[in-house]
Order: sequence, then structure tokens, then C-alpha cells
Amino acid sequence: MPERTAHARWQGNLRDGSGTMELGSGTFKGTYSFASRFESGPGTNPEELIGAAEAGCFSMAFANALSKAGHVPKEISTDAIVHFGGQAGAFSIQKIELKTEGLCPESTRRPSKRSRRTRRRIAPFRKP
Amino acid sequence: MPERTAHARWQGNLRDGSGTMELGSGTFKGTYSFASRFESGPGTNPEELIGAAEAGCFSMAFANALSKAGHVPKEISTDAIVHFGGQAGAFSIQKIELKTEGLCPESTRRPSKRSRRTRRRIAPFRKP
Repeated sequence: MPERTAHARWQGNLRDGSGTMELGSGTFKGTYSFASRFESGPGTNPEELIGAAEAGCFSMAFANALSKAGHVPKEISTDAIVHFGGQAGAFSIQKIELKTEGLCPESTRRPSKRSRRTRRRIAPFRKP
Repeated sequence: MPERTAHARWQGNLRDGSGTMELGSGTFKGTYSFASRFESGPGTNPEELIGAAEAGCFSMAFANALSKAGHVPKEISTDAIVHFGGQAGAFSIQKIELKTEGLCPESTRRPSKRSRRTRRRIAPFRKP
């Protein structure tokens, strides 16, 4: 079972402190603060990291399902909008919206019966 | 209510395709692939993004709770280990471990009764 790691550090109190979040792969280390999380200050925040993860997972899984149905996508493009809010001191993610567009050519082969069923389920924009 | 955004793109099928995940703040855009997600190839993956978000959220919240109890932390440091696995074709996050260490000086003031109760609950390593 793969294990993925990450690290975060926070220094100081909530309002005046600051922190970093870092990916185990070493591809990113970014700063965050009260302003970057709850206001519109510069830096990253946990919510957009979760948005990127959801959009990335969905795009990959959707491409896989389309490929299995006989349509290898040229591109699957997904925007995530993470709604973060609530009462003061008890903020949480209220909703995550994913908006996906795809560029997917016709299949060059006759899909199997199973593929046709899958396509109907996940890709209703194309008639089987 | 703040809205945070992110974007992902995937091109091709599951095994041979590749993608990018990007944060709305513009602080990071990273590539991912089957190998970076399910094997040990270079690049990022959705799971370590979620790990970083969890570690970042927890470090900030813990620092806030300690500060309210009269101990503004010099540093809260959290490692996330995301266990990702399952049966072929049905992978999911099985567990996320967070390991936290903190450097937290004595308070310079007498905490309130409420702060002492909070401290007992969240920071049992210091006697009230």
C-alpha cells in the first residue's frame, strides 16, 4: 500500500503567526497565514490543496472510465470550487463543486457490451 | 464565505497519460501520473496534497488552542502519513496519521479558569 507524506509547520498564534505546508515528493513548499486562509492575503491554504486533490483525482478517474469505454480522452479539464465558511471559530468546508470539460474523440473500435454500459453510466453526453 | 479554487487537467488514458494539478492562488502547479500516484515515479499526487492540507489545518488550529490557553507556541510541527490502498481499481485513502511536536514556552500570565480547562483537554503534556 503506497504511503504519501506531507509536513506542516506553524509559528505563533492564529492572527499574527505564519506557517508552511510541504509535499513529501518535494515538489512544493508554500507559506500560509490567517490572511491567506480566511481573507485574501498572499500564500496558499489547506482548502485549495484539497480542491486540487479532488480535481486531480476526478480528472484521472474520469479519463480512465472513458478510456475503458473506448474513448481515450485528449484532455479532461476540471475546476474545483471549495466553499469554506461557517460561524467564527468553527469554519469548515461546506461544499466542493467540480466542473469538468473534456475533449474526447470517437472510438476507433466497437466497444464491448460492458463498455457500452459503462459509457451510458458515466458519459451520458455521448449516445452509445 | 471564502471560496478557494484549483484546477486539474488529465491527458490520455490511466496508464500512459499524465496531468497537472494547480492551486488557485498560483503558488503551485505540479505534474502527476500513474507512476507518481500508484508507484514511486516523480511528480505529485492527490494524496500528498490532502496530507499537507490536514497537517496545515491541524497545526494552525492547535497553535490557536494553545494560544488561547496562554501558551503561544514558538513552533508546531506536524507530519502527515496518508495510507492509500485497497483492491485494484478501487483505491482509496484508508487512514491519515498526524504526528505533532511543539515548542511552547510557559505562559507569562495566569490563565483564566476556562483556559485552564481547555489546556487540560488539548495539552495534557503540561499540568495546569
